Amino acid sequence: MNEAEFIDALRGLARDPAARGLLDDVAVLGDLVFTHDMIVEGVHFLPNDPPEDVAWKLVAVNLSDLAAKGAEPVGCLLGYTLGPAEWNAAFIAGLGAVLEHYSMPLLGGDTVKANGPRSFGLTAIGRSAHAPAREGAQAGDALYVTGVIGRAGVGLELLKTGRTGPEIEAYRRPQPRLAEGRALAPVVHAMMDVSDGLLIDAARMAEASGLAVETDLDDVPVAGDPMRAVTAGDDYELLFAAPADLPLPVAATRIGRFAAGGGLSLTRGGQAIALPSSLGWVHD
Amino acid sequence: MNEAEFIDALRGLARDPAARGLLDDVAVLGDLVFTHDMIVEGVHFLPNDPPEDVAWKLVAVNLSDLAAKGAEPVGCLLGYTLGPAEWNAAFIAGLGAVLEHYSMPLLGGDTVKANGPRSFGLTAIGRSAHAPAREGAQAGDALYVTGVIGRAGVGLELLKTGRTGPEIEAYRRPQPRLAEGRALAPVVHAMMDVSDGLLIDAARMAEASGLAVETDLDDVPVAGDPMRAVTAGDDYELLFAAPADLPLPVAATRIGRFAAGGGLSLTRGGQAIALPSSLGWVHD
Repeated sequence: MNEAEFIDALRGLARDPAARGLLDDVAVLGDLVFTHDMIVEGVHFLPNDPPEDVAWKLVAVNLSDLAAKGAEPVGCLLGYTLGPAEWNAAFIAGLGAVLEHYSMPLLGGDTVKANGPRSFGLTAIGRSAHAPAREGAQAGDALYVTGVIGRAGVGLELLKTGRTGPEIEAYRRPQPRLAEGRALAPVVHAMMDVSDGLLIDAARMAEASGLAVETDLDDVPVAGDPMRAVTAGDDYELLFAAPADLPLPVAATRIGRFAAGGGLSLTRGGQAIALPSSLGWVHD
Repeated sequence: MNEAEFIDALRGLARDPAARGLLDDVAVLGDLVFTHDMIVEGVHFLPNDPPEDVAWKLVAVNLSDLAAKGAEPVGCLLGYTLGPAEWNAAFIAGLGAVLEHYSMPLLGGDTVKANGPRSFGLTAIGRSAHAPAREGAQAGDALYVTGVIGRAGVGLELLKTGRTGPEIEAYRRPQPRLAEGRALAPVVHAMMDVSDGLLIDAARMAEASGLAVETDLDDVPVAGDPMRAVTAGDDYELLFAAPADLPLPVAATRIGRFAAGGGLSLTRGGQAIALPSSLGWVHD
């Protein structure tokens, strides 16, 4: 049973409506929204990333799931694997800073010891009167994205090649779009955050909605190489479907449209182009 | 910053009243109760424990925290580190069984890959109209415990020495006292589960309540050597403080009493005896 099969089996167990079929990054119980994301050394962060930034990223990636449901932070529970003494101290400093920054109360959790690469988990709880699903896009809707795509990918590339640049901050300290999410949630048809890559996430929204989606590479605001940008992850921008004539309450860029059918098609300057071999970060 | 210092620092961050100062194993938000416990290979379970039992234990230890607050299971989020294919499949089977057994809906979570010993986290959400704290014991209250203490410790010893016996089931498949917790929660002054050892947990309840507690070793229903039993962990029985003349709604044994002052004292047949060097499982 590989990861995809394991997740399918979990879906089979998650029959409660609050689970949203494990298709929506969050569970929704009344007006409460729950998410649990883990980050692992060597996978989601680099062993020499500053501990303060690891704390930031752990909280930020979970807040990004809340943002996509228009939720206010209510509280969080931390699962922490102890590290070296100085590392722990720096992590606490970073955790305090990010929780303060986003007004996210720490409510509980657990601390354990383990050998080998360390992993951290966070359960974030939020409150939202309107938590749009990933599956609500309608034929004719426009596809929008906030911000610029690909900055985190550029940052990771800089780190891996021993260079520096402002994009490193985008990789290490993503900024969840909480305010934008709250403004958008009541008016959009579908919304999710872009965590695994713009193309794969757009394809997932279309699939969940039972629709086709088309996007033009030239329309996407990108950092660096466009094709690399739209297949890189870790941006934590908001991707959403809304009627094309809807006045938007926040800044966002229209990058495509939904139509009857299925699948993702890509154009550049209006001309169809081939999809890249990988649409983003895929769990194999 | 070692583990104790780290947890102290977390307490400094957890200022929201819902966090209960991180002193109560759970967070309480309205009538919702939240807990997050992790289990680590080689620490909380043995590498050759059956995966079905690991899944059981992960869910059961979290349900035990809900039980101590009189909570009904509402849902859970799983943090899973992938293992070998057959292990994953067996874990899923066990997870399905324990969730079904306790009517605990799976609502979400995350799945990651990591090298080295694997760890699993679960966030359990429950609902309780009366969630007794650990700190509510009053001078004159009796100290009670459900069930028999030390069976899990005997089971672990059997496993470590390559023997067999019915206590292995107690170690691998603890039975959270959900029904007892629900019956007790509205009437007790303080309640917690016995996870780290009876003596250390009794001392913690007394300390949180600003009281002294005295217990007589001969009064504790034990499996195996009494002193080893009261310092072993993993029993997941309920420990609670209630007026000595209160008729109890469930079976439990009176094992001590609270008084003004501080600290834990131990007697045997009414005679004071020395405390053991370790009161239980201490995070160093």
